[in-house]
Amino acid sequence: MALVACSQFTPVLGAVRENVDRSLELIREAAGRGAQVVVLPELASSGYAFADTAEAAAASEPATGESVTRWHNAAAELGIVIVAGFAETNPDGAPYNSAALVMPGADPVIYRKAHLWDRERLIFTPGDDLPPVVDTFVGRIGVMVCYDLEFPEWVRIAALAGAELICAPVNWPTVQRPNGERPGEVVRVQAEASMNRVAIAACDRGGNERGVEWSGASVIVDADGWPLALTERAGDRRRPAPQPTTAADGSTLPDRIDPATTIFAEIDLAASRTKRIAAYSDVIADRRTDLYERYSR
Amino acid sequence: MALVACSQFTPVLGAVRENVDRSLELIREAAGRGAQVVVLPELASSGYAFADTAEAAAASEPATGESVTRWHNAAAELGIVIVAGFAETNPDGAPYNSAALVMPGADPVIYRKAHLWDRERLIFTPGDDLPPVVDTFVGRIGVMVCYDLEFPEWVRIAALAGAELICAPVNWPTVQRPNGERPGEVVRVQAEASMNRVAIAACDRGGNERGVEWSGASVIVDADGWPLALTERAGDRRRPAPQPTTAADGSTLPDRIDPATTIFAEIDLAASRTKRIAAYSDVIADRRTDLYERYSR
Repeated sequence: MALVACSQFTPVLGAVRENVDRSLELIREAAGRGAQVVVLPELASSGYAFADTAEAAAASEPATGESVTRWHNAAAELGIVIVAGFAETNPDGAPYNSAALVMPGADPVIYRKAHLWDRERLIFTPGDDLPPVVDTFVGRIGVMVCYDLEFPEWVRIAALAGAELICAPVNWPTVQRPNGERPGEVVRVQAEASMNRVAIAACDRGGNERGVEWSGASVIVDADGWPLALTERAGDRRRPAPQPTTAADGSTLPDRIDPATTIFAEIDLAASRTKRIAAYSDVIADRRTDLYERYSR
Repeated sequence: MALVACSQFTPVLGAVRENVDRSLELIREAAGRGAQVVVLPELASSGYAFADTAEAAAASEPATGESVTRWHNAAAELGIVIVAGFAETNPDGAPYNSAALVMPGADPVIYRKAHLWDRERLIFTPGDDLPPVVDTFVGRIGVMVCYDLEFPEWVRIAALAGAELICAPVNWPTVQRPNGERPGEVVRVQAEASMNRVAIAACDRGGNERGVEWSGASVIVDADGWPLALTERAGDRRRPAPQPTTAADGSTLPDRIDPATTIFAEIDLAASRTKRIAAYSDVIADRRTDLYERYSR
């Protein structure tokens, strides 16, 4: 069993040192409560809503830079795994939207988001590598970022590589949805988990940035896709869906999201190794790979 | 726009003629209320819980047999599309778990379930063809059966072939789930729809059969994955999950499911042709097919 935390907070655009300061406070607090794995949001060090590549580049650092090093040092000191999003400098052009997995006694593992969302393709360079799956002291952890989760191909690849838990820094924008429904991203995380028998911890962010309202919908699901922990905004289907806090003219209304919330869940990572869901059924073995050639047309 | 109906009922094991009689009553009733597409459960003509291949074979018919012919005649007479599950005779061995799409002026299109669930592999022969996608007067309809829906590869294949609506006869067994949660199958249908921008109509069955309690959880979702219509048992997350009505000794307790319920939804099939979900994002174009080769290992 592993205690996994998602430390959701509200990064300030471009304020890298302050954002990492804040993340380290939350990491220490979570570790103090027993967390063995702490997931932070996408672009936790930099904020998200960059106007252009130059602005993103100014808030980016190499994987050997200060932010990843500070997280790595904290992981070593606290004896935990940290998965955090950051803007990664690209000497050849636009930065990457990356995530670092850091833990004691090992070099940081860097993943570069392969599926760029919307305007990100104007700001970032997409990654060209598969999601890493890393042996840690709690089990095998896969790493991907936000929109990557919406591609069942990608989650399947991580599951086939043996991921028992996928840690995903995310920034989910609030979009309209029917009253009583969870955010679509939460529904998809539930489904992806259950179709692969892999636990998923998705750490979202809160706040508003240049007219983008973030969902604050962090969620941790087990290998059956059932939420073990979720923020109020991720899970409450009984009250009306939150309304945007951006005014019609694009200006930002006062933030109504708790600026920092950590959710915790005890996960049985070993359960993800069992792909059997009935006496003769197995979510991996039952694939008809003989018929899927047309898949990636 | 098309009015789509799922006519959920409780087939009686082996009572083929009576089951088709009952289905035709429901089809006429749905068509009378304006339905242009009517989906029936998996193995609607035969029932499900066969002891062995011989018993299934006794309740099976060829695609040219009486059940498909009766559905085809009704579709022609009523000017509608019908998608219905039936046990299909296999001259070479165990029957297929098939679905027929019938409509006026065209031969029946037959699909044989490719992903067999649990003990089905002891009873049926799996199909070896991709899910058909058929041009109908309401739009392009894909056909698959129950457990097929749980393989994102399969839904993707249908979406890539242009399906605007997937009609899926299903038989979902009731399994334990946390209070307040929809059945996992419903969550997965929602997610699959939204990740492909394709509407899905899944027609479940009710009742008990030899110790199997069926969920009665029919659902119709739009291309964003939001339920347009669902039965009470598919959708009510506020009350405790239903408890099995099978006694500990395997005998069947009195059925508490309404034996027949038809749900209706008006679907904009043209909406499924738009794969764009943001200014620069498109659920199909954004796939990284260049990186997915490892997918079908």
